[in-house]
Amino acid sequence: MARNQSAGRPVPAPDATRRSERSRRAIYDAALALVAEVGYPKTTIEGIAARAGVGKQTIYRWWSSKADVLLEAFLDLSEQAAETARRAQADDRPAYGIPDTGDLAADLKAVLRATVDELRDPAFEAPSRALAAEGVVNEELGRAFVARLLEPQLQLYADRLRAAQEAGDVRADVDPRIALELFVSPLAQRWLQYTAPISHEYTDTLVDYALHGITPR
Amino acid sequence: MARNQSAGRPVPAPDATRRSERSRRAIYDAALALVAEVGYPKTTIEGIAARAGVGKQTIYRWWSSKADVLLEAFLDLSEQAAETARRAQADDRPAYGIPDTGDLAADLKAVLRATVDELRDPAFEAPSRALAAEGVVNEELGRAFVARLLEPQLQLYADRLRAAQEAGDVRADVDPRIALELFVSPLAQRWLQYTAPISHEYTDTLVDYALHGITPR
Repeated sequence: MARNQSAGRPVPAPDATRRSERSRRAIYDAALALVAEVGYPKTTIEGIAARAGVGKQTIYRWWSSKADVLLEAFLDLSEQAAETARRAQADDRPAYGIPDTGDLAADLKAVLRATVDELRDPAFEAPSRALAAEGVVNEELGRAFVARLLEPQLQLYADRLRAAQEAGDVRADVDPRIALELFVSPLAQRWLQYTAPISHEYTDTLVDYALHGITPR
Repeated sequence: MARNQSAGRPVPAPDATRRSERSRRAIYDAALALVAEVGYPKTTIEGIAARAGVGKQTIYRWWSSKADVLLEAFLDLSEQAAETARRAQADDRPAYGIPDTGDLAADLKAVLRATVDELRDPAFEAPSRALAAEGVVNEELGRAFVARLLEPQLQLYADRLRAAQEAGDVRADVDPRIALELFVSPLAQRWLQYTAPISHEYTDTLVDYALHGITPR
C-alpha cells in the first residue's frame, strides 16, 4: 500500500483500515462502471457515491475531483492487471517493468502480446475508452491521463531500450522515447480508432519492423 | 464536383446550382463549428440548420443523419486543405496521393511535415478532435470515420510504399499497410492524446527510424 503511505495519512486501527479498503475498492469499481456506462461528462461524484454505497463526504475526504477518483481507479486497475499477469506467469519477475532476458525482440513481443490481451479485456476496455475519448477533447484531463498513467508506462519501454543501447543492441544515436512509439503507437491507434484488428502476430510484426527497418539491409 | 456527379443527381440550372453550392458550404461550416463547440452528442440536424440559415428539410434532402453531414464536411475540409497545399507548392503535382520523386524518405517527410501543419491549424483541430473523441466510444461512428476518411488517406501511404517495393527501396516481405503505421501512428497518438509535442524534426526522425530500424546495421 505504498500509495496510502506516501499520502502521509496516520495509520488507522486494523478494523478501520479494512473498512477504508472496502470503501476505496467500492468507489473505484463504481467510478469505472459509471464512466463506462454514461461517459465522462455525465459521471459525477454523487453518482459514484450512490453506486458505491458511501457518502459523498467519504469521496471528498480522499479525492478532490471526479478526475482524481477516475485516474486513481485506473492506476489501481493497471496495477491489478499487472499483478494478475505476474501470477499467471508464476515467475519471480517484477510486476512492473519490461523483462530483460537479453533478447530485446522477445522481451518487447511478450509485453506487447500481454497488452493486446489487456486491451481486449471487457473490464478494461469500456472505462479506458471513456477516459481516452474525454482526454482527446479535454486537454487538461488528457494531460493528467498522460502524466499519471500513460507516460510512466511508456518510460518502461524507454528504460528497456536504454538497457539495449548499453548492450549494443540499439544504436547509440537513437532516442528511446521516440523509438518506443514505433511499436506502441500503432497498437494504440488500431485499438483507439478501430483502424484495423489487433493480434499477437500484428504486434510481433511491429517489433520486427521497428528493430530492423523496412528497407533492404 | 465528382462527388455530386457520382451521386447521380440531375444537373440543375446554373442559378439553382449556385444556390445549392452556397447552402452546402453553409451547412458544412455550421456542422464543423457546432461539433467543435458542443461536441458530437449535442450536435443536432436542427442546430446545424439554424446556424446555416437553412431549413431542416434542406439538410435531410441531401444527408440521412448528422454523422453523414459531418463525415462529408470533413471530407470537404480535407480536400480544401489538400488543394491549398497544392497551390502553395505552385506545382503540377496531383492534389491527392504522395509524391514519388524516387526518394522515399524525402517524399514521406514532406507529406508528414504538411500533416503536422494541418494538425496545428485551429480550423481543423477542434472539429477533428470532437469527431475523433466520439469515434473512440461510438464504434459505429468510429468505423465510418475510418472507412470514409482515415483509411483512404492511409492507403496513399500504402501505395507509395508499394511503389518503393517495386523500386527495390522497401523489402518485398514487408506489409505496406502495417509499415505505414510506424510513422503515421506515432504522430496520430501524440496529437490525439497529448503524449508529447509534434514538429517537423519529430516526423523526420520517425521516417528515418522506420526505414532503417533502430538496431545497428
